[in-house]
Amino acid sequence: MSKALPTRSENYSEWYNELVKRADLAETSAVRGCMVIKPYGYSIWEKMQRALDDMFKETGHQNAYFPLFIPKSYLSKEASHVEGFAKECAVVTHYRLKADPNGNGVIVDPDAKLEEELIVRPTSETVIWSTYKNWIQSYRDLPLLINQWANVVRWEMRTRLFLRTTEFLWQEGHTAHSTSAEAVAETKQMLEIYAQFAEEWMALPVVKGVKTANERFAGAVDTYCIEALMQDGKALQAGTSHFLGQNFATAFDVKFQDKEGKLEYVWGTSWGVSTRLMGALIMAHSDDAGLVLPPKLAPIQVVIIPIYKNEEQLTLISEKAAAITKELRKMGISVKFDNNDAYKPGYKFAEYELKGVPVRLAMGARDLENNTVEVARRDTKTKETVSLDGIAQFIGTLLDDIQVSIYNKALTFREENTMKVDTFEEFIRVLDTKGGFILAHWDGTSETEEKIKEETKATIRCVPLDSVEEQGVCIYSGKPSKRRVLFARAY
Amino acid sequence: MSKALPTRSENYSEWYNELVKRADLAETSAVRGCMVIKPYGYSIWEKMQRALDDMFKETGHQNAYFPLFIPKSYLSKEASHVEGFAKECAVVTHYRLKADPNGNGVIVDPDAKLEEELIVRPTSETVIWSTYKNWIQSYRDLPLLINQWANVVRWEMRTRLFLRTTEFLWQEGHTAHSTSAEAVAETKQMLEIYAQFAEEWMALPVVKGVKTANERFAGAVDTYCIEALMQDGKALQAGTSHFLGQNFATAFDVKFQDKEGKLEYVWGTSWGVSTRLMGALIMAHSDDAGLVLPPKLAPIQVVIIPIYKNEEQLTLISEKAAAITKELRKMGISVKFDNNDAYKPGYKFAEYELKGVPVRLAMGARDLENNTVEVARRDTKTKETVSLDGIAQFIGTLLDDIQVSIYNKALTFREENTMKVDTFEEFIRVLDTKGGFILAHWDGTSETEEKIKEETKATIRCVPLDSVEEQGVCIYSGKPSKRRVLFARAY
Repeated sequence: MSKALPTRSENYSEWYNELVKRADLAETSAVRGCMVIKPYGYSIWEKMQRALDDMFKETGHQNAYFPLFIPKSYLSKEASHVEGFAKECAVVTHYRLKADPNGNGVIVDPDAKLEEELIVRPTSETVIWSTYKNWIQSYRDLPLLINQWANVVRWEMRTRLFLRTTEFLWQEGHTAHSTSAEAVAETKQMLEIYAQFAEEWMALPVVKGVKTANERFAGAVDTYCIEALMQDGKALQAGTSHFLGQNFATAFDVKFQDKEGKLEYVWGTSWGVSTRLMGALIMAHSDDAGLVLPPKLAPIQVVIIPIYKNEEQLTLISEKAAAITKELRKMGISVKFDNNDAYKPGYKFAEYELKGVPVRLAMGARDLENNTVEVARRDTKTKETVSLDGIAQFIGTLLDDIQVSIYNKALTFREENTMKVDTFEEFIRVLDTKGGFILAHWDGTSETEEKIKEETKATIRCVPLDSVEEQGVCIYSGKPSKRRVLFARAY
Repeated sequence: MSKALPTRSENYSEWYNELVKRADLAETSAVRGCMVIKPYGYSIWEKMQRALDDMFKETGHQNAYFPLFIPKSYLSKEASHVEGFAKECAVVTHYRLKADPNGNGVIVDPDAKLEEELIVRPTSETVIWSTYKNWIQSYRDLPLLINQWANVVRWEMRTRLFLRTTEFLWQEGHTAHSTSAEAVAETKQMLEIYAQFAEEWMALPVVKGVKTANERFAGAVDTYCIEALMQDGKALQAGTSHFLGQNFATAFDVKFQDKEGKLEYVWGTSWGVSTRLMGALIMAHSDDAGLVLPPKLAPIQVVIIPIYKNEEQLTLISEKAAAITKELRKMGISVKFDNNDAYKPGYKFAEYELKGVPVRLAMGARDLENNTVEVARRDTKTKETVSLDGIAQFIGTLLDDIQVSIYNKALTFREENTMKVDTFEEFIRVLDTKGGFILAHWDGTSETEEKIKEETKATIRCVPLDSVEEQGVCIYSGKPSKRRVLFARAY
């Protein structure tokens, strides 16, 4: 390994950028704003996908696939949707290249201009609802519970690996229902699934809430979200679930005949999480030595490193390692035995710390004599020497411990960095010193929300679902308020 | 179910189009040439993906993700590649829309023109090799064994669902090696994996071979392929594996330092299969009543249909069905119990035939008395009444039988439709009567190959890997030939 990472306290942003690159998660590409997700990073994403996909299917959803391209006119059909999405996007105008008559490679063939331009999907509500029109006639066709795993493109001016990229990978659920109540229940169910995934798999505590009108998805009646706190005190929106009302059904004329034979517009939801979750995972747990991965999402859960002076020792260690590996794999634990002799153990230790492998086993001559192994956990960096008798069970329990421990650490951090604030002066002071989540009263107007944002760069992350009614006055306007909302500066 | 499908003998092409739509596999979208893959079709594709992905990983490959967009100039870097791919493609020229000043929705913002146009990837060699340049320095970095699951776009003028669509889904493997021999071995290994997948999972016998220079991938030194025969006597290329030599390494300046410290260009391969396999699967096995799916790829392997006169009978049948379902699921078999009372059993029988569910169980009052169930297999349409004792085991074995039986039927069909032909007259006669695979002598020149294609629409599908040396004369030119090659009209 080359030079150390920047530390978080020195420069959090640089620390993040360097970590993403050095841990082989992703890198920028030659195409502005688009990333290359490297195999190690992609294997974490695959684990996320598999877990989420299983949860979607358990709740009755099916996957399908809709076109990458959206006719330009579709975007205009839902009035507020076009406001939100038709601005910064990739526009396909031609369908052919031809040899440059001047001999300089290829040029766009002016004769191959599309009659109507195509937009690379920034999200798929329009193309999906235009399809649902043909799929839905009767209440018998409902609910329609569909999810898509896909790439989407939003032309971003300032990009950061995973957090904000022009192209990103995501899943987008799009469901259709016969009643408003059922669609709202679906919206909330998917929010719960996202929260459960964040907490159980990513070890990431999240606040569940509703967005204010300002922060709502373009085309939604209500946007629910999960919000997480990063180590630098900034919030990160980790997933959203939208109740669309009848907006897209109206825009695309999707009606169904109910049991009484009456024609009604269909009720809709959409919900998504993206490769942005990779950014959240990295920023929530990692430290100055590198990644800290929750075992459930770690591509390699256990690495075994032999420490040997000669071939004979290596052979003996390899035998023991093979036995441990076999037992662990039987338990469904992924193991790597790193006997690459091009690198010294110290180098390997640092490398696997950087990569966030949750448990490291080191075995040397002393261990051979004593039938032991040195077990180091990545999250706390503690080490202990453990007997090989029952080692597999020991490691299984340890991995479970680490998963819980990473979650608890993040939860404690969030609790320590969630403040109730009652004046605008204190609000600014907290934001400028420690940051974090701030629970404060707000008068409920978009005007105040925008002014606070202008003056402090803090936004209302959500109205938490578990917020209690409480009399107070808005920190900005002094007007009465009935509940606190969650403010933060955010990614 | 509405009216019957067109029959294969009446109109094979219409039969295929209608089957794809009626069996809920896919449909055309509002975007020219792009398809919507419906949930039932997508679940077959997911099973294909999972099986292939497992095979790739078992042979040491890792997944990664590269950008959707390719800078236009990249396409020109490999001379023959640009010839093959830079023609019909989606070109992104702008990155912003704005409100139409005339109030008609949105228009392309002329101020947001890209300096260099971006091409939606038709295949990713160029963007991947431009990345590999930074990943490869030394022989220690090799081999690099990477696969990507992605969508690609090739602007096709005439499209057909699954077989030829503007956007399609695929996997593309891109590997880098330190020697030519290793890259050739990789190319052949992946061909074997494709053949194994086609035969074991899709129940589709394939001929493995090498393409002639005319049919080679643009940028490859050699293209290996698997070719399958459809029921209408036309061939379908089901997968390709390319040995790229040092072509892309040279174009993108990807060199490595070998063990002696010498700088050398890297050797490459690429290989892919796509949603086209769905077309092959449908056309190879299905019949006039609908899909015939090999059990290993069937989303529902067993359907249970109750036949009842009253609620009491339904309750008793439901109990037995639940017991069978539980046992089958324990064996990893997917089961659906269809007790929807909106439809009659006869309707359901036809519906599941259309959907290609391999095994149908029907249970009525007589079966309750006798502790039996009626077992119907989709492929042969035979029925038998079977005791419920040991029914799960019986069905497990039956599913295995069906898998083998579908394969054998396709193999017999192919054998009956593979002809050795020695004159051009007979060649034309066979093509115009039964079609099929034709093994014939060819003089080895592109000129002859093209003339045969012009006159007969038949192409050389491949030089089969198992072809034996044999003296003969070219059916077209009369010049000497050393081996027969495989001709057919093809999709």
